[in-house]
Amino acid sequence: MPLYFIGLGLGDERDITLRGLETVRSCDRVFLDGYTSLLRTDLGQLEDLYGKKVTIADREMIEENVSSLLEPARTGNVAFLVVGDVFGATTHHDLVLRARQLGVECRFIFNASILTAVGVCGLQLYRFGETISLVFWTNAWRPTSWYEKLEANRRRGLHTLFLLDIRVHEPSEESLARGVKVFEPPRFMTIADAAQQLLTLWRERAQLLGRETDETGAGAFAYDSDTLCIGLARVGQVDELMAVGTLKEFSGKDFGPPLHSLVMPGDLHAVEAEYLASLPRASSLQTLLV
Amino acid sequence: MPLYFIGLGLGDERDITLRGLETVRSCDRVFLDGYTSLLRTDLGQLEDLYGKKVTIADREMIEENVSSLLEPARTGNVAFLVVGDVFGATTHHDLVLRARQLGVECRFIFNASILTAVGVCGLQLYRFGETISLVFWTNAWRPTSWYEKLEANRRRGLHTLFLLDIRVHEPSEESLARGVKVFEPPRFMTIADAAQQLLTLWRERAQLLGRETDETGAGAFAYDSDTLCIGLARVGQVDELMAVGTLKEFSGKDFGPPLHSLVMPGDLHAVEAEYLASLPRASSLQTLLV
Repeated sequence: MPLYFIGLGLGDERDITLRGLETVRSCDRVFLDGYTSLLRTDLGQLEDLYGKKVTIADREMIEENVSSLLEPARTGNVAFLVVGDVFGATTHHDLVLRARQLGVECRFIFNASILTAVGVCGLQLYRFGETISLVFWTNAWRPTSWYEKLEANRRRGLHTLFLLDIRVHEPSEESLARGVKVFEPPRFMTIADAAQQLLTLWRERAQLLGRETDETGAGAFAYDSDTLCIGLARVGQVDELMAVGTLKEFSGKDFGPPLHSLVMPGDLHAVEAEYLASLPRASSLQTLLV
Repeated sequence: MPLYFIGLGLGDERDITLRGLETVRSCDRVFLDGYTSLLRTDLGQLEDLYGKKVTIADREMIEENVSSLLEPARTGNVAFLVVGDVFGATTHHDLVLRARQLGVECRFIFNASILTAVGVCGLQLYRFGETISLVFWTNAWRPTSWYEKLEANRRRGLHTLFLLDIRVHEPSEESLARGVKVFEPPRFMTIADAAQQLLTLWRERAQLLGRETDETGAGAFAYDSDTLCIGLARVGQVDELMAVGTLKEFSGKDFGPPLHSLVMPGDLHAVEAEYLASLPRASSLQTLLV
């Protein structure tokens, strides 16, 4: 009576593997991780194809009421569907541990992840350094610990993938202050948001250092407003969009619906440089933001 | 008339996605990358399921006779199947560039890769540093440039994934010297091979430094024979095998058929440590090597 963790890949319901589909159809209960990821298809279409009713496992269920997911796996086959690959989110390791503590066997059916699909931008996967997650800044919380990771990647000439925040089923700060949970609509960080966060930190630090722009080389800031990046939107979907541009350019560009990712290249090999030169330029994209 | 790059994932022919299968069936010609990866299923079974004759694209075709693959894509739909995810191998960027130069549109259908499936070992994917490829040492060629990457990962407390060499359809050195290509049987680097290579470098360097073993801390070697690692074999397949052990232990352990990977953890968070503690120990595996 295993608990199957099944990756759904990056696109719609047809990106499940044959093995994944057969397994879902053999299950008594099917849950979909709706906490760490956004489903990029209609739930009804997914249920029609899989032939199963799907229950959304939101943050509350996974963090506070996980037994409603684990208990059925003690007596029947249960599928836990994850957009992307199975271990994209750290909460899933925790789920596996809790399942095993209950004596529930876990099995894994892997699928595509942005962590390797990002190769579509032309950079070699084995030349990426540590992946960086950017989260939305609020007035009260402006984490900048990503900067050290970025600097370490840049110093070694490595490429950097930025995974951009998504907020699904989050209670609003106001509602928490009032003691009643009211959930905000899902929102996702855009490439423009990410570029603006990077530029904000650069401007603030550059002013501290007493200069408006920064030189390359030892001691300099890890990037500036002219640093060339690659914006990727909806990778693996039919309306995938990808462009090369500077952080300054990206800060005013709209790449459309989720999900967005940003890549900052390190040192380029010949084939990488040729590939990047063949990509569309951000300056050719229509500017929808002011 | 696109050229479709289609990931096959990590297991057998049933690990293709529904989208991938529909696409293969719509193609006039189907090639399988037999240069950078090992197919982990019978070619006949794959052809039966896909309903297509599959041509193996070996190293010679991809490096010297790529037009036999690209020309059909100028007039019809062509699929290029890749074990794992599409951009796992750097040669594929080169193929995309050449295709685009001929005016052939390229499309990508992503799938699982060891680069993210490795999360099954319990370590968080975003805490991995640069991925390291280990190649077979020969008498004439003993590359050790991986050491610097490993040291940089270790210094930052990051985990390291070692991808282990596979040699598919390689001409033997003797045959090249005679001017006639005779191909060696496919061979793959085992976890034991990898551990032995790491230990060899450590022993040689430790002797240079005038000491048999090494301390942790500044200036010390990045690992020693007691460094704890995770061995992973056949991830994503039914006979997947995973164990925790020291490099010394791994150097004498047989994990069975390909493919093998090795992970050296960096600093561990609480959940990571708990997960690793729940994995089988290498010492409990039957020793088949001397």
